[in-house]
Amino acid sequence: MSDHTIPYKIYLSETEIPSAWYNLRADMKNKPAPLLNPGTHQPMTAAELSGVFCDELIEQELDDTTPFFAIPEPIREYYRTYRPSPLVRAYHLEKALGTPAKIYYKFEGNNTSGSHKLNSAIAQAYYAKKQGLKGVTTETGAGQWGTALSMACSYFGLDCKVYMVKVSYEQKPFRREVMRTYGASVTPSPSMETAVGRKILAEHPGTTGSLGCAISEAVEVATSIPGYRYVLGSVLNQVLLHQSVIGLETKTALDKYGITPDIIIGCAGGGSNLGGLIAPFMGEKLRGEKDYRIIAVEPASCPSFTRGKYAYDFCDTGMVCPLAKMYTLGSGFIPAPNHVGGLRYHGMSSTLSQLYADGLMEAVSVPQTSVFEAAEYFARVEGILPAPESSHAIRVAIDEAVKCRESGEEKTIVFGLTGTGYFDMVAYEKFHDGKMSDYIPTDEELKASLDKLPVV
Amino acid sequence: MSDHTIPYKIYLSETEIPSAWYNLRADMKNKPAPLLNPGTHQPMTAAELSGVFCDELIEQELDDTTPFFAIPEPIREYYRTYRPSPLVRAYHLEKALGTPAKIYYKFEGNNTSGSHKLNSAIAQAYYAKKQGLKGVTTETGAGQWGTALSMACSYFGLDCKVYMVKVSYEQKPFRREVMRTYGASVTPSPSMETAVGRKILAEHPGTTGSLGCAISEAVEVATSIPGYRYVLGSVLNQVLLHQSVIGLETKTALDKYGITPDIIIGCAGGGSNLGGLIAPFMGEKLRGEKDYRIIAVEPASCPSFTRGKYAYDFCDTGMVCPLAKMYTLGSGFIPAPNHVGGLRYHGMSSTLSQLYADGLMEAVSVPQTSVFEAAEYFARVEGILPAPESSHAIRVAIDEAVKCRESGEEKTIVFGLTGTGYFDMVAYEKFHDGKMSDYIPTDEELKASLDKLPVV
Repeated sequence: MSDHTIPYKIYLSETEIPSAWYNLRADMKNKPAPLLNPGTHQPMTAAELSGVFCDELIEQELDDTTPFFAIPEPIREYYRTYRPSPLVRAYHLEKALGTPAKIYYKFEGNNTSGSHKLNSAIAQAYYAKKQGLKGVTTETGAGQWGTALSMACSYFGLDCKVYMVKVSYEQKPFRREVMRTYGASVTPSPSMETAVGRKILAEHPGTTGSLGCAISEAVEVATSIPGYRYVLGSVLNQVLLHQSVIGLETKTALDKYGITPDIIIGCAGGGSNLGGLIAPFMGEKLRGEKDYRIIAVEPASCPSFTRGKYAYDFCDTGMVCPLAKMYTLGSGFIPAPNHVGGLRYHGMSSTLSQLYADGLMEAVSVPQTSVFEAAEYFARVEGILPAPESSHAIRVAIDEAVKCRESGEEKTIVFGLTGTGYFDMVAYEKFHDGKMSDYIPTDEELKASLDKLPVV
Repeated sequence: MSDHTIPYKIYLSETEIPSAWYNLRADMKNKPAPLLNPGTHQPMTAAELSGVFCDELIEQELDDTTPFFAIPEPIREYYRTYRPSPLVRAYHLEKALGTPAKIYYKFEGNNTSGSHKLNSAIAQAYYAKKQGLKGVTTETGAGQWGTALSMACSYFGLDCKVYMVKVSYEQKPFRREVMRTYGASVTPSPSMETAVGRKILAEHPGTTGSLGCAISEAVEVATSIPGYRYVLGSVLNQVLLHQSVIGLETKTALDKYGITPDIIIGCAGGGSNLGGLIAPFMGEKLRGEKDYRIIAVEPASCPSFTRGKYAYDFCDTGMVCPLAKMYTLGSGFIPAPNHVGGLRYHGMSSTLSQLYADGLMEAVSVPQTSVFEAAEYFARVEGILPAPESSHAIRVAIDEAVKCRESGEEKTIVFGLTGTGYFDMVAYEKFHDGKMSDYIPTDEELKASLDKLPVV
């Protein structure tokens, strides 16, 4: 294996960091449905959103026609501290599987946030600073987004208040310490600090929390303290826009070596990684230039694409946010407490939802034990200890590579390795100790939360 | 800051990974003193060492004349999965400090072991496999070496038994889980599993352990199970040889841009990182080709260079290992329990000890609170959350850069950023909560352990 023409790790130079983000929506014939005002059910205007979000981010959120947004130089300068990220050829994995498939992964874990989340965090913090704000609030699940935002706020000198899903706060005590190192405050959610938190705790005492709850708390705080806005690490169009840097770099690296992928695989919680990874490839597909198989992988315990409903729903449990049309399990849905693999959000990016509804991508759900089996296998052969979230994509990449072994096809598979699992060792411990269940919500449980969708 | 001719991260290509390790001893006029048989006080022969160490590693250990050892292709292939590591220009740190100094750091943390330790682990596992062994035993302090060895053993299909210093085992519960992911067994040391462990526990009930204890246990187990040998992550000549890959890559990267460092700084526990980083530079110095200021940084709570004695001593607490001539605090020395910064070994590499004795390098010791202040500052401005060990070098690099600010000198400073601190959040938490002390051993305490040095 020593005479590869393609290196193990394709590193672009810093001058090849994209100078503009790609806005996938510009190439979509069927645009994602607009956010609606929860009271009037009319599309949200920039003015209505301005109390919650930063102004320039609202422009990006609402713009579905401009194909490219220039990346401001201070953001590119920060990108240069950890980007371009490597596109890795999984030679060892291919060999271990005995597959003729060629496997590549875009590895976003080589930064202190441990994931791709930093790509959007630094952008959002920049726009908040530019607007003269004092600080931002946010929610975090696994803690990757909270860490990324802490780093970004520290860099630009902004205050950062993080509401962390309680179960993650308890499973990942050290994430809080990392965020403190960057000067952020971290509160387990639901908390008694907010009206919505107190209401949720009164209705569901002992709840382990959800991203939906934490969003409600963060929005309440952002809209009640002057000089603060709310920022979000996934789901929103603006986030997918920033994350397009992943796909753009991936495409540049592949093009450099004349490689065209057959299958592109990404894990999907709110959709930020998948939406970013596939952006330029889906663009080609939308413009009829090329075709790719694109697969979203989600946990069987939180199956919004595969078992959810495509409908308008609240983005948060407290129902304080705008309505979004998306594949959703209902804003009250909370994965079983035994679920440790992240990707816990009840809904899915509106953009990805529309693409999925239009048959432009596939989705599969996988049980968590099989995800951790793939994670450990990958760690041993490729060296990198993956985040549970990322391991959903590994699971399906391995499955597809095994199919190639059986069929003899030399397909090229690209997947997103969104991050590292260094803060997920409680989850790995459960797996090692055989204490992991593959509980999947029943049809009745899903019906119960889907019955509460708003009537639009 | 956008028009740098020198990028933020200098990445060599995979073909530039060194093809041979550099053996610094070949250029030393005063060779490091040989290991002595603890019974006869005669230099250890290869035959005597062969029950403990792997055969080819013994050759490397004893050879102080061959300047280069070819790196076997299977090791280079593994290196390609995570090397070359970046040489980073610390633009943000320079700006934050307002210094005219140019600061570079060789970052060894972008692999799952989280440190440079993998460079030697993969080499040692390779030679063990080549010899047809079943497995290896070792000790680990902070857990970086144990993790690295677990990864290496998993890759080559070897069993791996790790004895982990009890205080680290308790402070870093998740390190154990990472090692389990790679299939290793991890035992807190001292344990009741070995004769030496039981003896130490009987004499010092409640001890929090030390590297010296853990070495004794690992050696006992290696020499009592057929098909096993003992491997060590620092101190030994063979380890410094493997770690020369750090310095060789650093030098190649600097040469590419015509940069000559004035000061080279590394943290020093057993000396593996420092010895590896400085190897080619010290070689030039020894051959009279160039001059560099070289600074070893150690914790004030474990000050072997700055307050130890240059003498023959046991390498382990149980006194089962050969005697080494080194700067030592006495093999019974254990840092105060409050010490959380790693670099806990009582002695220092024989090679570095000889170089220090010959006035070819300097050493400074730093109190741990100031180390964590530097760590947090660095994390905020450079993004990377550093390991406490690495932060010793950061502390002195910052101090030297500040001196440059005061004197106006544009010195070039290179330091080793050996690893990340993701598994050190208990230590960071102590720092954040103000629960860190700067206890430094008294002269009486040092005298008590130094009085027990063997008479040679």
